[in-house]
Amino acid sequence: MAPVFNVAVLIYPDSDIIDFSGPLEVYTTFPPPDTPASFKSTTFGWHSPVKVGAGALKVIPDASIDEISSNLENYDILVVPGAMPDTITDMLKEEDGKAIKALIEKFAGLKPRKETGHRIVQSVCSGALLLAASGILANKTVTTHHMCLDLLKDIADEAAGGKGKSNTNVVSKRWVDAGLTDAGVRIVNAGGVTSGIDTSLWVVELLVDKERAAFIADIVEFERRKQDDGWVSSP
Amino acid sequence: MAPVFNVAVLIYPDSDIIDFSGPLEVYTTFPPPDTPASFKSTTFGWHSPVKVGAGALKVIPDASIDEISSNLENYDILVVPGAMPDTITDMLKEEDGKAIKALIEKFAGLKPRKETGHRIVQSVCSGALLLAASGILANKTVTTHHMCLDLLKDIADEAAGGKGKSNTNVVSKRWVDAGLTDAGVRIVNAGGVTSGIDTSLWVVELLVDKERAAFIADIVEFERRKQDDGWVSSP
Repeated sequence: MAPVFNVAVLIYPDSDIIDFSGPLEVYTTFPPPDTPASFKSTTFGWHSPVKVGAGALKVIPDASIDEISSNLENYDILVVPGAMPDTITDMLKEEDGKAIKALIEKFAGLKPRKETGHRIVQSVCSGALLLAASGILANKTVTTHHMCLDLLKDIADEAAGGKGKSNTNVVSKRWVDAGLTDAGVRIVNAGGVTSGIDTSLWVVELLVDKERAAFIADIVEFERRKQDDGWVSSP
Repeated sequence: MAPVFNVAVLIYPDSDIIDFSGPLEVYTTFPPPDTPASFKSTTFGWHSPVKVGAGALKVIPDASIDEISSNLENYDILVVPGAMPDTITDMLKEEDGKAIKALIEKFAGLKPRKETGHRIVQSVCSGALLLAASGILANKTVTTHHMCLDLLKDIADEAAGGKGKSNTNVVSKRWVDAGLTDAGVRIVNAGGVTSGIDTSLWVVELLVDKERAAFIADIVEFERRKQDDGWVSSP
């Protein structure tokens, strides 16, 4: 039977819009005929409706955090979007931030999903800061939005117990495959905002094949960038 | 006083997600310090909540069609997203489609907004089909998603009374500035899906300046394409 990859997409107050809608678009673009695999996405969060993008859009998540947390093992991909850095550092001091950290840590400790052989936690943009806070970026090479590189290092260090203790190597790339957690969950970080589209297309290559990714890029008319493309501001 | 450009973003059932969230992201990205202008977006639609992207996301529009229609003159930009072609052709047979057509026609017949000197109707992807159905693409050079080029011509002709009667010239480009309606409203069409991001950045250039557009592209880490870039599928 063709595999169905289940994608859980976190949406919290003031999440960046493209950070979550880019991956949603890629994972839910209708598959070509005779498709060898499909994706099923579920949005989830703590608040409903949740205002995102500085209030520009009101979203009703499909599921609550408790519903997702109680069957986390059924998800192949956990998408963690970013926001303005202050939004995230403020949230990390509150119950919402603690719950997100706990969820990420729990997901990263699961074995690959039995039905598909995969498990991926995928941050987009400053969503990597939430992964860092959960402690899973220690000893990894990672990326984030080009304005959050230093902050990512600081938060990874703080989660590891102090300055220089995380051994987290922060680089500026379009996306990074940071490798596996001890349990076998792959950590993938997109750079800023629209790089989540490139990253999701690469995840589709990994889980399905290059042809599927090319099919989706064609539908969404997206000119893909390379993994090693860091962000260079336009002149 | 620095101008505020008001953006009305239509969201209907099964709209493509990036078609409306791309422009929303661009228009609502926080402005640089000492900004000379700002944008305020309002989403609107007939249904609430409205499921978009083949059910992948549930959105609550900020306003109803009646609310927007009754003060349409206060909006500088009307964003019309696309969907799967069948979704649009089916909708055009129903009340929703008729209401959208009437709204577009009404907007295109307004003078430029007194406060800003601008008025733009901006389609994304197959949203151009809705503009065509409203009759405003007659005698214009226009574009849409690369899979909808012929359909766009057919719908424009049908609105003009029959085959070959619209004198609509359909081209494959990243976006098209189709020029002004008789009343002075600029018609802008994006190509497929992510081209709405390029198009919105160009609209920001037009309404504010190149520096603002470059600032936003940098924040969202989006490598811009050129207006004349038609879509060429990846190998």
